[in-house]
Amino acid sequence: MSDPLKIGLLGRGTVGSALEELVAGRRPEIEAACGRPFEIAGVLTTSEGDFDQILAESDVIVELIGGVDDARRYVLAALEAGKPVVTANKQLVARYGDELFAAAAAAGTELRFEAAVAGVVPIIRTIREAFGSVPFTRVFGIVNGTTNFILTEMASTGASYEEALSRAQELGYAEADPTEDVNGADAAAKMAILARLAFHAPVTLDQVSFEGIESVQPDDLAYARELGLSLKLLGVAERLEGGLTVRVFPCFLYPGHPLAPVEGPFNAVTVEAPEITEVTVSGPGAGGPQTAAAVLGDLISIVDGGGGGEPVESEIPVLDAVESSFYLHLEVEDVPGVLAEVARLLSSAGVSVRSVVQKGMGDEARLVMVVHRCPEDAFLTAVAEIAGLDYMRSPPRFIRVIEEEFV
Amino acid sequence: MSDPLKIGLLGRGTVGSALEELVAGRRPEIEAACGRPFEIAGVLTTSEGDFDQILAESDVIVELIGGVDDARRYVLAALEAGKPVVTANKQLVARYGDELFAAAAAAGTELRFEAAVAGVVPIIRTIREAFGSVPFTRVFGIVNGTTNFILTEMASTGASYEEALSRAQELGYAEADPTEDVNGADAAAKMAILARLAFHAPVTLDQVSFEGIESVQPDDLAYARELGLSLKLLGVAERLEGGLTVRVFPCFLYPGHPLAPVEGPFNAVTVEAPEITEVTVSGPGAGGPQTAAAVLGDLISIVDGGGGGEPVESEIPVLDAVESSFYLHLEVEDVPGVLAEVARLLSSAGVSVRSVVQKGMGDEARLVMVVHRCPEDAFLTAVAEIAGLDYMRSPPRFIRVIEEEFV
Repeated sequence: MSDPLKIGLLGRGTVGSALEELVAGRRPEIEAACGRPFEIAGVLTTSEGDFDQILAESDVIVELIGGVDDARRYVLAALEAGKPVVTANKQLVARYGDELFAAAAAAGTELRFEAAVAGVVPIIRTIREAFGSVPFTRVFGIVNGTTNFILTEMASTGASYEEALSRAQELGYAEADPTEDVNGADAAAKMAILARLAFHAPVTLDQVSFEGIESVQPDDLAYARELGLSLKLLGVAERLEGGLTVRVFPCFLYPGHPLAPVEGPFNAVTVEAPEITEVTVSGPGAGGPQTAAAVLGDLISIVDGGGGGEPVESEIPVLDAVESSFYLHLEVEDVPGVLAEVARLLSSAGVSVRSVVQKGMGDEARLVMVVHRCPEDAFLTAVAEIAGLDYMRSPPRFIRVIEEEFV
Repeated sequence: MSDPLKIGLLGRGTVGSALEELVAGRRPEIEAACGRPFEIAGVLTTSEGDFDQILAESDVIVELIGGVDDARRYVLAALEAGKPVVTANKQLVARYGDELFAAAAAAGTELRFEAAVAGVVPIIRTIREAFGSVPFTRVFGIVNGTTNFILTEMASTGASYEEALSRAQELGYAEADPTEDVNGADAAAKMAILARLAFHAPVTLDQVSFEGIESVQPDDLAYARELGLSLKLLGVAERLEGGLTVRVFPCFLYPGHPLAPVEGPFNAVTVEAPEITEVTVSGPGAGGPQTAAAVLGDLISIVDGGGGGEPVESEIPVLDAVESSFYLHLEVEDVPGVLAEVARLLSSAGVSVRSVVQKGMGDEARLVMVVHRCPEDAFLTAVAEIAGLDYMRSPPRFIRVIEEEFV
């Protein structure tokens, strides 16, 4: 085995602590993926550590202190020393991207920042790497989870903006001072980064116009529902004839729009180009462990491009006996007691019914139900018994149902 | 500038030809991204080229001939010669993945195959690279565009399976012999690959159980709609206590499921792990240019990990004047002629109305409308005039609407 990759960690807040846990807890997996383990060589916080010493003793720097002044100085020093840097700092990349990319290129090293935009959603990787040098025509997304939670809450409960914001704060989706999130400034910084990468254009933060969601009224959402629309705070970067636009604004989407189904604190970004049509990536926009996982992905990419051999564990059994929920469609004769008899057979096999639709009369009678998750063999046994009932006009049909609830 | 990257191209069908066009047409962008241009050093088809000569003259091999016997021989020979390989061949990777990964690792080179699963959707990259060594608990997806198109067609038009299949064939979404698509075998090969990567488990093709969609009836879809469900052919790979399962089957999804909104020939895959919650990637599942873009992305990743400096073009103007569709909310007095007057002011500014809802009476009267896409300054001029009307009980409110239709 090779020497460990020595990580200099700047900042030990929520994300920094989660990264320390990941690096320690996933040591065997990291070693299998990269051919070498990772270790934290030093940590810089306001109360401990010396940056120059940490830099000298590290192979790579992870910047998680936030803010722009100190962060810029440390990141530049690391890149100039030829050491790759991973950061989750969107303000840093949005404001000083040109300077930092130039420093990385001059020193022949890397700057990675997947966690700076849309948390664990791999949008930076998708734009920079997935489609080669395809020139994008448009990038749009929901890149602020706080505002998407608030708008989802207002739409689903009829709450006012203030009520929904309080709820977001209670649940930890909004900070005590939510200004940068709700006025669109946070989304604007992320869109400046995405526009720069997608269009290879020197977009600066002051070129991104933004509006927030503070003045959205509950009845805007009520009318929108009547019109079949959903409201999102959208960032849009578009290449037009003669130039480009980068903007953040609340807007309504029709149901067929790829971002219309994105609800709660989730983020999602769609990229478009003639060669790829459109590709959307979505997932949780924030959270310590999620952001740390994105940082770890960047670290592993620095060590190994990701295309090498694939480690394989010793034999893992592939199981047959699994559980499912089912839709069951029965064409039955219209006589009393059919439902009771079917329900009895299901129940005695341990299968419980979630919903039933009984339809038609005489030769058209049908019993359509969804049963809760149960062992598949129990369900199949019950269906075999049901198939033998005198009332059946044709063999039972069934299709699995994914029953679980998502965010 | 460095020497060009010499590509040995095996196969010149739809994808191979599209790749030749991309490599020639995007030469400046590729050179800017990688620091070196790409060139096709040789092409092997049934009527031209000699494999050994092409291998000797190439830096990297792109395998697009399909089938497994010749493809396996060529890819192994290339890897053993230490040359990286990019392939779009799902059967090859699903059947001989172990052998090929071992050969790549032994020679210290790379095997990349983003285009083998879900076309341009960057799911291989997401699983292998985005989250470091996070162990996934579940991977599920819609990985066959033909069947998703057929199910969407049946659900939206009430067509029978046979009618929907004919329509898919007319539109080029299904092949003349659709067997491997509709019986689930194609999806099974893709799920074997995804399960192997996600769980680092030696999953073989014969361990993946699969069912197809041939027996789905239109009234299953009609009842599903009543129950609020949508039908998809899903691949599910799950890590359970004691082992794992990899299966492909038609199933119903509740509306909150991340894959429920995926319609038509699109693909989408969700990966889950405690550290990341869930992340979904979606986009077109097939198509020559799309698949070629995924191959090009793999080629660029082989040359450059993607984290270096970012090229920036000379200044591109950031534009202000843009067009939007708008929602307009007016609290008005309930007197005759309000709608006519508002419509006249919009119309004379060149703004046309898409839909109107008129609500309430007396002090509650509201006029809520959506207008078609128009220059933003024209709309703002009209709104300023409307704000000056005597009938207005409060200032007009407006929110942008994304009007365009998606697949």
